[in-house]
Formats: sequence, C-alpha cells, structure tokens
Amino acid sequence: MADNNSTASSPLRGDKRGAVTIVKVGGKVVEEPESLQQLLEDFSSIEGAKILVHGGGRSATAMAEKLGVKTEMIGGRRITSKEMLDVVVMVYGGLINKNIVAQCQSLGMNAIGLTGADLNIIRAVKRPVKDIDYGYAGDVVSVQGDQLQNLLQTGAVPVIAPLTHDGNGLMLNTNADTMAAETAKALAKCCEVSLVYCFEKPGVLSDPDDDNSVIPVLTHADFKKYQEDRTINAGMIPKLDNGFDALNAGAKEIIITSAASLTKLNDSGTRLTF
Amino acid sequence: MADNNSTASSPLRGDKRGAVTIVKVGGKVVEEPESLQQLLEDFSSIEGAKILVHGGGRSATAMAEKLGVKTEMIGGRRITSKEMLDVVVMVYGGLINKNIVAQCQSLGMNAIGLTGADLNIIRAVKRPVKDIDYGYAGDVVSVQGDQLQNLLQTGAVPVIAPLTHDGNGLMLNTNADTMAAETAKALAKCCEVSLVYCFEKPGVLSDPDDDNSVIPVLTHADFKKYQEDRTINAGMIPKLDNGFDALNAGAKEIIITSAASLTKLNDSGTRLTF
Repeated sequence: MADNNSTASSPLRGDKRGAVTIVKVGGKVVEEPESLQQLLEDFSSIEGAKILVHGGGRSATAMAEKLGVKTEMIGGRRITSKEMLDVVVMVYGGLINKNIVAQCQSLGMNAIGLTGADLNIIRAVKRPVKDIDYGYAGDVVSVQGDQLQNLLQTGAVPVIAPLTHDGNGLMLNTNADTMAAETAKALAKCCEVSLVYCFEKPGVLSDPDDDNSVIPVLTHADFKKYQEDRTINAGMIPKLDNGFDALNAGAKEIIITSAASLTKLNDSGTRLTF
Repeated sequence: MADNNSTASSPLRGDKRGAVTIVKVGGKVVEEPESLQQLLEDFSSIEGAKILVHGGGRSATAMAEKLGVKTEMIGGRRITSKEMLDVVVMVYGGLINKNIVAQCQSLGMNAIGLTGADLNIIRAVKRPVKDIDYGYAGDVVSVQGDQLQNLLQTGAVPVIAPLTHDGNGLMLNTNADTMAAETAKALAKCCEVSLVYCFEKPGVLSDPDDDNSVIPVLTHADFKKYQEDRTINAGMIPKLDNGFDALNAGAKEIIITSAASLTKLNDSGTRLTF
C-alpha cells in the first residue's frame, strides 16, 4: 500500500510511526474453505504489519441450529442469549479463529488468535437494555492499542474474533465491523492505519444492482445523501458509520472492497473521505 | 514457591534465569463454575511468571453428544475424527479457553489464550497409524519456548488449550498433560520450571483407597516398582511418565497434587525425583 513511511513494508519497529493494515472479513468468504484459503493467501501478500478481524455469523447460526439454540436477529443484530453466547464463543473464538490461525501459520504468517479478553485488548460493556434486550452483546469501551502494537512489533499477525469481555469475567458478543473500526481508532494514535472492509460486493455501489457502479471515493456528505435517498442499503450503513468513525479518529484510509481485490487495493473499492 | 533466584517473585526479566510455574488442570475442576473460580483465584495467588494448561475432555464429550458426534476412547485416549476435531477446537480453544481467560482478567491476571497454532508455540505431527488410528491426534514435535518467554516477560499469563497444529494448516488434538510437560521441557532451557499437575486426588497414593496415603517424594525407581505391582493405577501412569520426562529435561520440580492445594504447594502433594 502507498505510504510515505519507511517502515511501511516491514513490521512496526521501535517507536517509529509504522503502517498497519487492518482487514475485516466476514460473510461467506470466511466460512467456505476454498474462498477462505484464497483470502488468506491474498492477506499474506500484504506487506508490513497487519491484523485480520473476522466474522462468522453464518457458522454460528448453523451451529446454534444443530444444538437447538434459537437464533433471533433484530435489525441485522443478533440477540445473544446465554446459550447463544456459548455458541459464538465456541464458533468465533474456537472453530473459526483457530483454523484461520493454523492456515495463516502454514502460509508463513506468525498468526496469533485473539478475542478482546486476551491481553485485555478490547473491553466492552454489556449493552444496556432500552427498547430491545440484545442479551450478551458488548459495546466496546476500550482498546489496548499498546498491547496490539507490542505484538505487531514482534512480527506477529493478530487474528481477532468478534468477542470482547467485560472485565468481570464475562465474554460478550461484539460486531466484527465495530471491532475492526475500534482497533483502527486505537492504533491510529501510534500508526498509519489502513482499514479495509472486505465483503461480497466490489465496493459501495451507486446502483445496488450494478457491480460496475462502484463509487471510488465516498465523501461523508455523499454518504448522508445516499443514505437519505436509499441508494445505500441498510446493511451497508453500520459498516460506513464505523468507517467514517475510524477516519474521524485519525485512520489514514478506509477502503470498502471485495475480498477478491485484497491484492490490488490501490485500484479497487471505495475510499471514504470527509 | 521456594527458589534461590531473585526473580522468583516477579515475571521473567531480561535474560536472567527466572522462575516459571506451569499449572496443568483438568477434569471436573475446570468444568464446574464454582471449582473453576476457586482454582483461578488460587492460581492468581502464585507469584511470578506462570502458565495455565487446561483440559476439558468431559465438556468435549458432552458437546459431541449434543451434536450427535460419537465419542470413542481407546486406553483413555480419544479417537479424533474430523467431526470430533471440530468439537475439541470449539470447546477447548473457544468455550473453555476464552472463559478462563476472561475470568483470569477479572482476577487481575493479564491472561492470553493460546493453542499450539498461536505464535506457532507448539507444533505437532498427526499421530502415525500403527495398531490404532487415533485420527486427528497430534504428537508434539516442537515448542517455541522463546515465544512463551517473550509473553511472560511482558507480564502476560498464557492459558494453553490442549490443541496443536501441524504447520500445514491443520489443528490437532493433543493430550493436556503432554502439552504441560513439553512446555516445561522447552522452558527448562531458560528458566527454573516448576510443573504442577492438579487433579482430583491429593497426590500419588500408596493406597488408592486412602487419600491419606500420599507419597511425598516419588523416585523413578519407586515409580517403576509401584507400576509393576499396580499400586499406581493406569490413569496416573502417563501423567507420571510425562512428569519424569520433564524432570529429566531439566525442570526444577514436578508436583502432583490436588487443585485445592495450589496455595500450599510446599506442604502437599507428591514431588518427583530421580
């Protein structure tokens, strides 16, 4: 990735302001062996310090069904009962995370799987009940960027599952897009952060039915306009809110693109700007 | 714990030969909330650098049953089919490990959950098929003691699940007693290692029916004698073999004791010696 910092192509060193690429992947791409393998190969080609944040909602839903645990979603958000919490801790923190770590290792990346509880990197609070009780859902309250930076400085590649903890011994289910944005915000204090949201589409589309209608640069004003006239669909809005939030906090660039474009980030996807 | 090294009561520092306590816990104690909480409180009182290695076989068996995955054991060892591998990766690496990590954090320990794949700390080879095909069971081939040492030097408390990887992208199921012994052996190269096996009994018993018959010091010759005359039962033998193996590799002390004795290691359990 383009960067005017000399440490851009190597892991963070000392207290220099190095580059970090945070890639968030979710959906089918992390849950089908072939697409996951391709994604990790592409991810391995990204130079310098990097972090992978993964989702896994479909696998959690499938596992819940096998175990007779009811999946309930409101507005695209999972209601996390105690039984569902066990499922997501198993599936996100165990099955998906550890298999990704093992595959990363086989590709020469010194991956380390993390949840927010590990090294206390991401602490959250159980979401207060207002109109809806989301159950064991965590809203992020703090990210220990220094702990992540220490790992990055050793050449490690953190692989982060969408789970946090409350500091009182409880794991919590947290949206992976939010985890990625919060991580970007915390690391922006020390590093040149590129945050890449990979999803099924090639970017933010001006025509949802036309994959060739990628908006190369999306300003915050245009985002608000597209949101009002419903050009941008509901599913994209939290991702873009998270992205602008990270940009506002000092992340260098936010890119929304397809997993297939991970090796050509300069020439694809949508970049956010103010 | 008694130690003539001045770093005994603080995490490893620099290249001094510090003390590390490795505690292995398994069985009911890690799978029942009350006993686990007590265990972790006791573990938190151990001074200096420390590592927790946990099992979780009963939970894996219970989860397998819920998922309709058949549990098959031969000579106390689990046959790990592909479906069972998914179960143990979920249960050991996710459910048990992450809940322990969150609880450790709540007790002031900066825990980090690890499998052998994370930071490539423990690599294994899929057990060769001889008389029995153990499936996706891993025999340890290497432990990166330096990676663990780096974590310990930052004050982190590794919490290790009984899972390894083969370096080719595959997770493998590995006996927790063996994981603990192999970790002790690797760290013995740099540190004064105390390896503590916690289990249901107060130590190695000379009379299996009398909990007051703890053998305070067990020599290797006595172990062989007790093994021949069946004083020591079959379930203890792999644990003791692992323990003598670690002692032989330079671990300072090996203690077999009950989880309840973790706060009074000097006055309880069985110590191994040659």
